[in-house]
Amino acid sequence: MKKLINDAADVVSEALLGIEAAHSDRVRVDHDLKIIYRADAPVQGKVGLISGGGSGHEPMHGGFVGPGMLDAACCGEMFTSPVPDQMMAATKAVDGGAGVLHIVKNYTGDVMNFEMAAEMAADEAGVRVESIVTDDDVAVQDSLYTAGRRGVGVTVLLEKIVGAAAEEQRDLDAILALAKQVNGNGRSMGMALTSCTVPAAGKPTFELGEDEMEVGIGIHGEPGRKRLPIAPARDIAQMLVEPILADLDFKGSPTIVFMNGMGGTPLIELYLMYNEVSKILAKSGVTIARSLVGSYITSLEMAGCSVTLLKADDDMVKLWDAPVNTPGLRWGC
Amino acid sequence: MKKLINDAADVVSEALLGIEAAHSDRVRVDHDLKIIYRADAPVQGKVGLISGGGSGHEPMHGGFVGPGMLDAACCGEMFTSPVPDQMMAATKAVDGGAGVLHIVKNYTGDVMNFEMAAEMAADEAGVRVESIVTDDDVAVQDSLYTAGRRGVGVTVLLEKIVGAAAEEQRDLDAILALAKQVNGNGRSMGMALTSCTVPAAGKPTFELGEDEMEVGIGIHGEPGRKRLPIAPARDIAQMLVEPILADLDFKGSPTIVFMNGMGGTPLIELYLMYNEVSKILAKSGVTIARSLVGSYITSLEMAGCSVTLLKADDDMVKLWDAPVNTPGLRWGC
Repeated sequence: MKKLINDAADVVSEALLGIEAAHSDRVRVDHDLKIIYRADAPVQGKVGLISGGGSGHEPMHGGFVGPGMLDAACCGEMFTSPVPDQMMAATKAVDGGAGVLHIVKNYTGDVMNFEMAAEMAADEAGVRVESIVTDDDVAVQDSLYTAGRRGVGVTVLLEKIVGAAAEEQRDLDAILALAKQVNGNGRSMGMALTSCTVPAAGKPTFELGEDEMEVGIGIHGEPGRKRLPIAPARDIAQMLVEPILADLDFKGSPTIVFMNGMGGTPLIELYLMYNEVSKILAKSGVTIARSLVGSYITSLEMAGCSVTLLKADDDMVKLWDAPVNTPGLRWGC
Repeated sequence: MKKLINDAADVVSEALLGIEAAHSDRVRVDHDLKIIYRADAPVQGKVGLISGGGSGHEPMHGGFVGPGMLDAACCGEMFTSPVPDQMMAATKAVDGGAGVLHIVKNYTGDVMNFEMAAEMAADEAGVRVESIVTDDDVAVQDSLYTAGRRGVGVTVLLEKIVGAAAEEQRDLDAILALAKQVNGNGRSMGMALTSCTVPAAGKPTFELGEDEMEVGIGIHGEPGRKRLPIAPARDIAQMLVEPILADLDFKGSPTIVFMNGMGGTPLIELYLMYNEVSKILAKSGVTIARSLVGSYITSLEMAGCSVTLLKADDDMVKLWDAPVNTPGLRWGC
């Protein structure tokens, strides 16, 4: 195992020290509870936005904390759900009197722990908490850690769009409705060329032959739809976009396209893939309104990519364009 | 070889199509000459800034084209210098009457071709051209493609800082002096855990054992200082920072710290490394004024990292903070 780490047990806590050192202008870190907070949280009158999940997907979620996106991110151990105590502490800390939204990717542990935290925060501190569970991955119905579809790339888009709406001080009902709309209108599909290696495991999560790829992979190396011989980028793009378009009709709506890298894939390949995806969408009559190309929801050093399409509307596009100032996404600030 | 590509011969041209498709709001692309231009170039009265080099280092340089940074980037084939015709065309196209600065990383082919282009542009179009050759890599004196030190990470910082100064319409003499100061005050050192694979070669550029790393590596897999058994992150940080601090005294100056990923290293490891680097700097009495953590000057999918320190002053820090709107670096816009 080749990694830039000290002890496998300390990777998350030491990376949090680095995030704090690099971004103390925007975030503060509770190292005991492994929570990254927006520096000025709680913001009075603003709905608080919390997400979290296992580590190893950076910059998601900790890199999306800051004005215009999340108020806090709860960091679990590598590929491991955070615990309810983290989410409860974060919920109480970011409540500015307008309630809190939990943004939860659909993995059984995350869903369960966020639910418990929401109940505890309501009971103990009287905080109104709503939840959105993202489940945009069209690859498989159930999976290793999931009942139903997995939550993947749309989570990044949702955090940005809902983050901008919260910044405008829209109320919790409106924020929840918007979050549901974004999740309902988002679809993703991913693939891997190589496995990732969880530091504590010390060996690859799964095995892939020298000429193989896994199509429909999850962000923890969960099995996908099929293992196939490696194919040209244009065929891979087709394999990712076709199931998405078969699942939802994007025609006639401004679509946000997110070409995501899994962590070990260089940017030049992501741009090449984006070209293939945009050609398929043009042929299919889908209008690209905005795009995001880069590694934003990753699986450690896994090589591969995912495509997320979001059927947006003018409001969502406007919220997408709104200023954001986080370590991972920044513009207008 | 596992890559998200079609034909190895088309990687650069197809990635350029993707860059254009994703960022047509900010850049336009000359596909024949493989030049990425700022959409509104030439900007009248502003010194034009051009860089370029072999592809495979994205987002450098094409991802740094836009307001506040470069006016054009000339893209060579993978790890191969662009040709003088590209640089000459770019020089003429971005000249807004205030002259043009060539920002050249110190590799023999790049230096030679940019020199020829500068002469041709002066002779044919009467454009005043100055050049800065970056040579910040303290690892080795001469190298596979270089006489003298190699130009690496400081190039990114220079393009940002000098880009902001050009945006303020400082004149070419001032821009050149600033560029020399930034290069003279910047030092870098890198390392690799794995090799990269150039698509046309189809096999790794060099071989590294399962438990080995190469310290002092170049961005094309050029040999470094030494091949060593893999070490903890804190020791690797020491091996990178020590030669930098031995080469230049950073004490008493606001220092910009750039923790760069080589392309295949996940962000969580870069933050962990940044923590180690910042601890060493604190112990050494170096004051961190600003930081940049991420993969900005890469070597395809190579796993590894580099550290760049820039001994700045108040003017440089102000220019660093100035708005920038490029695909790769964006804030304030």
